[in-house]
Amino acid sequence: MAANFLMPTRDHQFILKEWLPLEQILSYEAFSEAYSMDDVDMILEQAHKMCREIIAPTNEDGDKNPAHLADGKVILPESFKEAYDFVQENGWGTSNLDTDEGALPELLMTAVNEFVIGANPAFAPYVGATTGSAKLIQTFGDNRQKEIFLPKMLEGAWSGTMCLTEPNAGSDVGDITTKAFPTETPGAYKIKGTKCFITAGDHNLTENIIHLLLARIESAAPGTKGISLFIVPKFRVDNEGNIAGSNDVTCVGVEHKMGLKASATAMLSFGDNNDCIGYLLGDPPDENGKAKGMAQMFQMMNGARYETGLMALAVSAVAYHNAAQYARERIQGRPLTNPKSDRLPIVKHTDVRRMLMNMKAHNEAVRAMIYKTGFMLDMQHHDPDEGKRKMAAAYVDVSTPLVKAYASDVVWPLTGEAIQVYGGYGFSEEYPVAQSARDCKIYSIWEGTNYIQALDLIGRKWTMKNGEVFKAWMKDLKQTIESFSDNPEFAKEYAILSEAYKAYRGIQQKTMEFYMQQQFNLLPLFATRILHCTAKLYCGALITDQAVLAAGKAAELGEDHFDYAFYRGKVEAARYYVRNIVPEVMCTARIIAEADTSVLDVPEEAFNF
Amino acid sequence: MAANFLMPTRDHQFILKEWLPLEQILSYEAFSEAYSMDDVDMILEQAHKMCREIIAPTNEDGDKNPAHLADGKVILPESFKEAYDFVQENGWGTSNLDTDEGALPELLMTAVNEFVIGANPAFAPYVGATTGSAKLIQTFGDNRQKEIFLPKMLEGAWSGTMCLTEPNAGSDVGDITTKAFPTETPGAYKIKGTKCFITAGDHNLTENIIHLLLARIESAAPGTKGISLFIVPKFRVDNEGNIAGSNDVTCVGVEHKMGLKASATAMLSFGDNNDCIGYLLGDPPDENGKAKGMAQMFQMMNGARYETGLMALAVSAVAYHNAAQYARERIQGRPLTNPKSDRLPIVKHTDVRRMLMNMKAHNEAVRAMIYKTGFMLDMQHHDPDEGKRKMAAAYVDVSTPLVKAYASDVVWPLTGEAIQVYGGYGFSEEYPVAQSARDCKIYSIWEGTNYIQALDLIGRKWTMKNGEVFKAWMKDLKQTIESFSDNPEFAKEYAILSEAYKAYRGIQQKTMEFYMQQQFNLLPLFATRILHCTAKLYCGALITDQAVLAAGKAAELGEDHFDYAFYRGKVEAARYYVRNIVPEVMCTARIIAEADTSVLDVPEEAFNF
Repeated sequence: MAANFLMPTRDHQFILKEWLPLEQILSYEAFSEAYSMDDVDMILEQAHKMCREIIAPTNEDGDKNPAHLADGKVILPESFKEAYDFVQENGWGTSNLDTDEGALPELLMTAVNEFVIGANPAFAPYVGATTGSAKLIQTFGDNRQKEIFLPKMLEGAWSGTMCLTEPNAGSDVGDITTKAFPTETPGAYKIKGTKCFITAGDHNLTENIIHLLLARIESAAPGTKGISLFIVPKFRVDNEGNIAGSNDVTCVGVEHKMGLKASATAMLSFGDNNDCIGYLLGDPPDENGKAKGMAQMFQMMNGARYETGLMALAVSAVAYHNAAQYARERIQGRPLTNPKSDRLPIVKHTDVRRMLMNMKAHNEAVRAMIYKTGFMLDMQHHDPDEGKRKMAAAYVDVSTPLVKAYASDVVWPLTGEAIQVYGGYGFSEEYPVAQSARDCKIYSIWEGTNYIQALDLIGRKWTMKNGEVFKAWMKDLKQTIESFSDNPEFAKEYAILSEAYKAYRGIQQKTMEFYMQQQFNLLPLFATRILHCTAKLYCGALITDQAVLAAGKAAELGEDHFDYAFYRGKVEAARYYVRNIVPEVMCTARIIAEADTSVLDVPEEAFNF
Repeated sequence: MAANFLMPTRDHQFILKEWLPLEQILSYEAFSEAYSMDDVDMILEQAHKMCREIIAPTNEDGDKNPAHLADGKVILPESFKEAYDFVQENGWGTSNLDTDEGALPELLMTAVNEFVIGANPAFAPYVGATTGSAKLIQTFGDNRQKEIFLPKMLEGAWSGTMCLTEPNAGSDVGDITTKAFPTETPGAYKIKGTKCFITAGDHNLTENIIHLLLARIESAAPGTKGISLFIVPKFRVDNEGNIAGSNDVTCVGVEHKMGLKASATAMLSFGDNNDCIGYLLGDPPDENGKAKGMAQMFQMMNGARYETGLMALAVSAVAYHNAAQYARERIQGRPLTNPKSDRLPIVKHTDVRRMLMNMKAHNEAVRAMIYKTGFMLDMQHHDPDEGKRKMAAAYVDVSTPLVKAYASDVVWPLTGEAIQVYGGYGFSEEYPVAQSARDCKIYSIWEGTNYIQALDLIGRKWTMKNGEVFKAWMKDLKQTIESFSDNPEFAKEYAILSEAYKAYRGIQQKTMEFYMQQQFNLLPLFATRILHCTAKLYCGALITDQAVLAAGKAAELGEDHFDYAFYRGKVEAARYYVRNIVPEVMCTARIIAEADTSVLDVPEEAFNF
């Protein structure tokens, strides 16, 4: 069964109205006329209502009726078309790129998107891929391209995709073999190649699909630096922007996946009949064959990585809320200390509470990290002060791999725990959490595997601008931790976070030693674990920051107030996270310090056994 | 796609012929005439051949064609019947209970069963449930019951099930409502009730299904102590052992599950027409209403828990071997240190190696634990020395919850990691590991959830016979660790294991303090984590014990020997496990020492958010 759309908005309201200075964002020129803080509740409620009423009902339909290929066409569940149109027509989708029309800040769209994904994680990418690809045209397209493609994409009448991967070039995008051959028309190229794993790659939701495709122009340099980015519509478009026949793009297959079943993951063939035209985005390769495609694509890629972290969070949150509701309703067993008393709802059993708390604390910690990053994204793009924009951009650079990889690594154990709360019913598809577990597993893989994120963190982000960028990020983190130093209620959290910070510095020092000693292999060996340590430390600091605020509110309101349980829940979730999860940073630091090389030393043939 | 049956036998040969003194088991009267050490290779090879050729081909069939109910009958994939008959007719199944016919020791059957489960985890329970229920009749049945039911069950012509769970009584079996009413025939009762989650509960593999069912005889005590165990055939059996019409047992539904799809998990209704007869196993309740059913069932239950750990291991092993094979074949990316060199098989990428090593090390550590327990099972049942039998029984008592819960908790992250090695293809059902992940999730739930295992460990096993049983188990563990003390090659492992042992003693002391201070809630709060610590420490000691042996062999044989990579692989796997996993015991010990109570303190209403 599809996941019930259980997603209370209270934590989002806390983040947007109490914790982060959203009013600063709303004061920026892009937003100040359209929105005020008074609108936040209404926006959240409207988006939530759409998700409850329009999107969530499509979830079960999609899981039961996977996207499939019939007579060369990809068929989606019928309910998807209505939901897609509703989202796009009511301004919750791609039109948010249209800043003339009162676009929502990224931070608010993050909440909207968390709801949309939670309501149906297989549906959300149809809108998301359209927005991501439209944004590329908006940023890098010439006026003509914008005129022809953007209006239809912004209104959602045409959808979009990102075509990077090929059967033999996944993580290693520099090895793509799709080719672009110049034609007599400047900017128009004949495209020839096969792309796979294309999310929303083909479907019947929109009358056209605009593929943003990576290909190598004949004679361009090998590797990533010779790759260009093209607009390749499924159907040709004439000068008036009308559809004008086939563009020789064929869907040759749809993946049968363990989850996100109604998200059509397509294999597309371009130019089988040598009649596929693509339009180059930006300039052709320079005299050295160096092209701009990868740099352009990275704009989208960073957004997609942020969005992937959000997807993992949304699926995890829905699984948690379903498990919590089940735990309140399911009657089973008696108290250990008094086996003669009445049967209990299982939420009363200690280990069930522990699992719920583990899910809650992780979700709130990850949500803190993601929304903080969303805040910085708005600052990066809209703050009038250039220094602040740069500072925010640097902050986003460091945080993006954490958001992508940590959120998508924890969602697998967390959804497994949601199944465990349900007991035998969790393994049954009649209950919602099995689907959550099946859906989430792709997030650690797509948009750059989590190993690639880890290498990005320690290889690029640590070293950006001679390490200044990461140093500033760490300084900010340190300040957050130090702000707890005089708070007796969080003395223990302060002590643990300070110790973890120190341990983390030790990890950095140790990796520097590896580097100096030319033990280059040890850096990738510990990269994934270092990323996890970074995220745990960061999430621990942010959730404690929230808890300090929440503790004050709880004390102020008193036990009888309806919001007391929420605020105390935030405090205890932070305690749980810092006292039970953050100490793993010290454990990993010790392991790294001892620099075990068994993974490197083992003969490769040993993996035959 | 069904998991490819990749399961090298080398580690099993190592365990059976080099590490554990199987010759001691084979010297027992029950086995000495039938088997010698010379037979081991042949037995493994024959079993493996059956799994490869007969069972493995049914795996994809089962995953694609789930068990389903049609016209009141459960339909299985056609290939299952042939495989079931082959296993039973060739002596690899239930007939092993027939000790007159040269039964294999438990230790060897463990290897056979690991292969069978690995070949098709949804198929194995049809044989396993039959063996488990036949064993109950063999142990507790009267001569008449044995005469009528056993011959057909031992030859597999009739299968069996265990009927415990009801819709409202899962973990809390004492709350079952199925009733048994005496008839005029002594020992025969009318059964009325509904059972659910019955593995192999209905199917078309055999002409009859013999349910071993828990019910409460009218007037018996409430709770677990008033429960009796009944033999309830699907079809009645006459005095000659022939099938004689319906016994009013109806299959009312089959679960739609995320995995093990061809394993029919049935809901059964007994006595809808008041015409279902069950035969009491053993004595009726005594004058206080105390019955014997739970104690009888626990014989089966302990076997089922051992088997569940083995199932988790088998699925994990097959996922690992598939991922390892894929990693050797899949070409992607270049060395980080030399981006201009040729593309590599992904096994060369450090993080892929790390994941493979993590899977390998966990599997070998868990296998060491399970087979050691299997060895003790044979000793418990067959050693001529009563003291040794008792010692072994105590050892098995302590180890059973570890085998069940640790193996089934690690398999979820491990199969997730196997998917990660495959990248995008791992999320596709065209490749085998998605199924492994879907299949494995039930193992942490059935046969007593892993929380129940954890409570069993710290509530029963720690305290059995005033703690003497666990003390002996710890002493044995300590001896194993101390045996590394003078081995310079494993000085680091000795140091870590000694520290973990001490940390574990600290955990025990701390829980004693909780108990003395009447902080009873803290024991279940940390129970699951304590079980994990126990298993990590134990597995760490056992895998190091194996490594000491393997290091000697590797040194003796030299690098050019074909077995060198296997032995070095064992050494490095042990190093990896001890240096990267065992330190988590210290981390958890610290967390327990600080006794965080956030899980208990959080208001229950906070789980609404």
